[in-house]
Amino acid sequence: MKRPMQGMELLTDLYELTMMQVYLKTGIIHTHAIFDMFFRKNPFNSGYVVFAGLEQIIDYLQNLSFSKESIDYLHSLKIFSDDFLDYCKSFRFTGSIFSFQEGDIVFPEEPIIRVEAPLGQAQLIETALLNCINFQCLIATKAARVCHAARGRQVIEFGLRRAQGPDGGLSASRASFIGGCIGTSNVLAGKMYGIPVKGTHAHSFVMAYDSEIEAFDNYTTVFPDTSILLVDTYDTLHSGIVNAIKAAKKLAASNKRLAGIRLDSGDLAALSKQVRKLLDGEGLEYVKIVASNDLDEYRVDELLRQGAPIDIFGVGTRLATGYSESALSGVYKMAAIEKDGRLIPKMKISDEMSKGTIPSRKNVYRYYTTNNTMCFDIICQDDEIVLDGDVYDIKGNRFTVEKDFISRCMHIPIFQNGTLVYAKPSIQEIQHHCMNSVQSLPESLKDLYSPAEYQVYISPGLFRLLESMRTAIHNNID
Amino acid sequence: MKRPMQGMELLTDLYELTMMQVYLKTGIIHTHAIFDMFFRKNPFNSGYVVFAGLEQIIDYLQNLSFSKESIDYLHSLKIFSDDFLDYCKSFRFTGSIFSFQEGDIVFPEEPIIRVEAPLGQAQLIETALLNCINFQCLIATKAARVCHAARGRQVIEFGLRRAQGPDGGLSASRASFIGGCIGTSNVLAGKMYGIPVKGTHAHSFVMAYDSEIEAFDNYTTVFPDTSILLVDTYDTLHSGIVNAIKAAKKLAASNKRLAGIRLDSGDLAALSKQVRKLLDGEGLEYVKIVASNDLDEYRVDELLRQGAPIDIFGVGTRLATGYSESALSGVYKMAAIEKDGRLIPKMKISDEMSKGTIPSRKNVYRYYTTNNTMCFDIICQDDEIVLDGDVYDIKGNRFTVEKDFISRCMHIPIFQNGTLVYAKPSIQEIQHHCMNSVQSLPESLKDLYSPAEYQVYISPGLFRLLESMRTAIHNNID
Repeated sequence: MKRPMQGMELLTDLYELTMMQVYLKTGIIHTHAIFDMFFRKNPFNSGYVVFAGLEQIIDYLQNLSFSKESIDYLHSLKIFSDDFLDYCKSFRFTGSIFSFQEGDIVFPEEPIIRVEAPLGQAQLIETALLNCINFQCLIATKAARVCHAARGRQVIEFGLRRAQGPDGGLSASRASFIGGCIGTSNVLAGKMYGIPVKGTHAHSFVMAYDSEIEAFDNYTTVFPDTSILLVDTYDTLHSGIVNAIKAAKKLAASNKRLAGIRLDSGDLAALSKQVRKLLDGEGLEYVKIVASNDLDEYRVDELLRQGAPIDIFGVGTRLATGYSESALSGVYKMAAIEKDGRLIPKMKISDEMSKGTIPSRKNVYRYYTTNNTMCFDIICQDDEIVLDGDVYDIKGNRFTVEKDFISRCMHIPIFQNGTLVYAKPSIQEIQHHCMNSVQSLPESLKDLYSPAEYQVYISPGLFRLLESMRTAIHNNID
Repeated sequence: MKRPMQGMELLTDLYELTMMQVYLKTGIIHTHAIFDMFFRKNPFNSGYVVFAGLEQIIDYLQNLSFSKESIDYLHSLKIFSDDFLDYCKSFRFTGSIFSFQEGDIVFPEEPIIRVEAPLGQAQLIETALLNCINFQCLIATKAARVCHAARGRQVIEFGLRRAQGPDGGLSASRASFIGGCIGTSNVLAGKMYGIPVKGTHAHSFVMAYDSEIEAFDNYTTVFPDTSILLVDTYDTLHSGIVNAIKAAKKLAASNKRLAGIRLDSGDLAALSKQVRKLLDGEGLEYVKIVASNDLDEYRVDELLRQGAPIDIFGVGTRLATGYSESALSGVYKMAAIEKDGRLIPKMKISDEMSKGTIPSRKNVYRYYTTNNTMCFDIICQDDEIVLDGDVYDIKGNRFTVEKDFISRCMHIPIFQNGTLVYAKPSIQEIQHHCMNSVQSLPESLKDLYSPAEYQVYISPGLFRLLESMRTAIHNNID
């Protein structure tokens, strides 16, 4: 079962619909327009963002139509005209989408998704597109950071119970897997997305029996090969680990191996060292130590710096909700609109310099060294290619591109005139692509605390356009 | 349409299901058990939490059964036995639920929801219950704080595009309305929950036309009574407000009134004052000022302290995701389990003192002054009533209750033996109840920056039980 994206036509802000009604009234609802989705700032003080969420947008667009029930609801609001409701009744997405691929690395200011569609359609999809992409990018990025901190040790996502609603949990499980987690505790996410499901047991399980050892023995009897025993219900060192060792030895006597124990409170660095010693002293070197309890990339990094012999990290709330930042501030802005058969570039300037936009139909090229390390990106006008020469940063500083880079076009066609033209990769392929993408990032960008800044430049053609439009708008206002 | 809660039987952590299989194997899956949902710390440095999310839990429990597809998926994991899958096939919730009501105020450590059910059932529902209640409580609380800061001015929730997935947005809209918002931009939330939907227009709307004034005139022509014009696409003072005034005057000439203008960038305090003056200077005193742009309770409070003449606040990301805190840390712990026909109280102690639990079947009584101000709560054993005498705080300090309080039992029966016995209030009734609840809080608890701490006491019977069980567990370990 896939959770249906049908019925999602109303997952939009009211203003998209009221604007559409005005577009219809003024005869421009079918006018060809271009919108960009981009964000302005990396979350988590990260040096990069992992792109995720595209598959859900594809499903959404393929199923996008107004049910009778939705039309009736809109009618009941008493603000929509009959001709607008008729427009809704025959609504289908007939536009084109160009996008980065899931698992790609993306950076502030660059268009991640480019929508080219009749104005009304491009407007309607704004909210759902932002909702989906903002959140999955946020969590895929957080997961990549946690996995980077874990230095090859396994990370499992445990966040459902604190996630922001059911889909908050489901989308978080999916994005966490893309970012590098090996699995999730969320069974529905496992079923929907084909992600491995993992788990241990709860304190209540121990409390359901007369004694901790009885609980452990019962669990290992049913799951002799996969039991991970939670040892802190009463007292980790004086009770939990003592009983876990007893259970492990009983298993060993019948040639079975206890998979692991889980620490969920206290000083995880100190406890993991003591527990490792106790286990090893009993010949239980193979029993893995799983740690959980409000972990994030910083806590994981700190534990490993302290030499904590933890094999697997269970990461919940602080992964599945972003925690230190709960939203990626992605926006969706008009870049151009057709008029009299010509595409007119559009830009927003603003009282806040940082809230301006980059006009026209654009593409992003990524430049690599010959040994496949990412160097910089250039945002170009769509028909422009920069092989060498001068480019500009957002503030107008000049930079010279030389010839010995390998460049790659990052915008892939997803929909063309309403038809899906993209072969959706599996979630495993996306994760693999993400691992490769992270691999190609310079180490300095992956620093958890003070990452280097990746350079995103603007092509000369785009820079000239930007300058001339800024001047024109200011002249127009003054 | 309601978003279906069917198919949600797998919205659970894998470990719930593996524990259930062991419960089945060891013959205790039908054993009567009691679990409490509670949280340990108020979010946002708040003095209180607004309870929300119960209606979704009711829907979930009423629809809880395993589809063939879900059974097939569990089977495919190759860890579940046939007898366990048979148990799942006939699964129905047959337990009892006692709970606070939505819109009630709740505090750390007190049982908010009490589940009394066969052990397997009580275990399965843990994750979905926490997922739903944790998030809606978080957002209802945030909304109540923002509305408190707004001092009677209207607050609209605009968060969908930055919310954590589709349900993140839907649940946030619902909880925000409960906490006091007058409406949401989220059309699907409007349809699903019967919440008023509200909106203005986007920058793209202005950019879709040749000029700002053309855009404004087009919008006001279609929505002559409800237009709120966004004035910062190019320049708020030099362009946006000038054109909005023109549009307002044109409307006024045909006896229509521009509803408002929206500020979305820049210094909102200064701009709102300048804009108010410009509007008033043109006889447009009735045009409301709406403000948005990364607002939260602190920013709203600051703006009003600065005398900003803002009438309506549009609050998005920082409301719909919690932002400064992205999760309420609610937990679900076993309080008692039946053995040989007797209810045995259960508690978890922990290496971290703060992660222990309070044993036995409990209820919460709230004590009010005669003029309906909340004074303190007492957690009691279910058959215990404290009229006066000594009670204890969590740390064991004694406090004496006197007679002149009015007390109220907070646990309401929701399900009894699987049957819904609670008349679900409408969302408007819940909001109204929440407003009354917030009203009855002492002012000192509502302080945004440094609220007083509300006292939650433990009854004498419960205190004695807690002490004796702690001793017994420690003796058992040592």
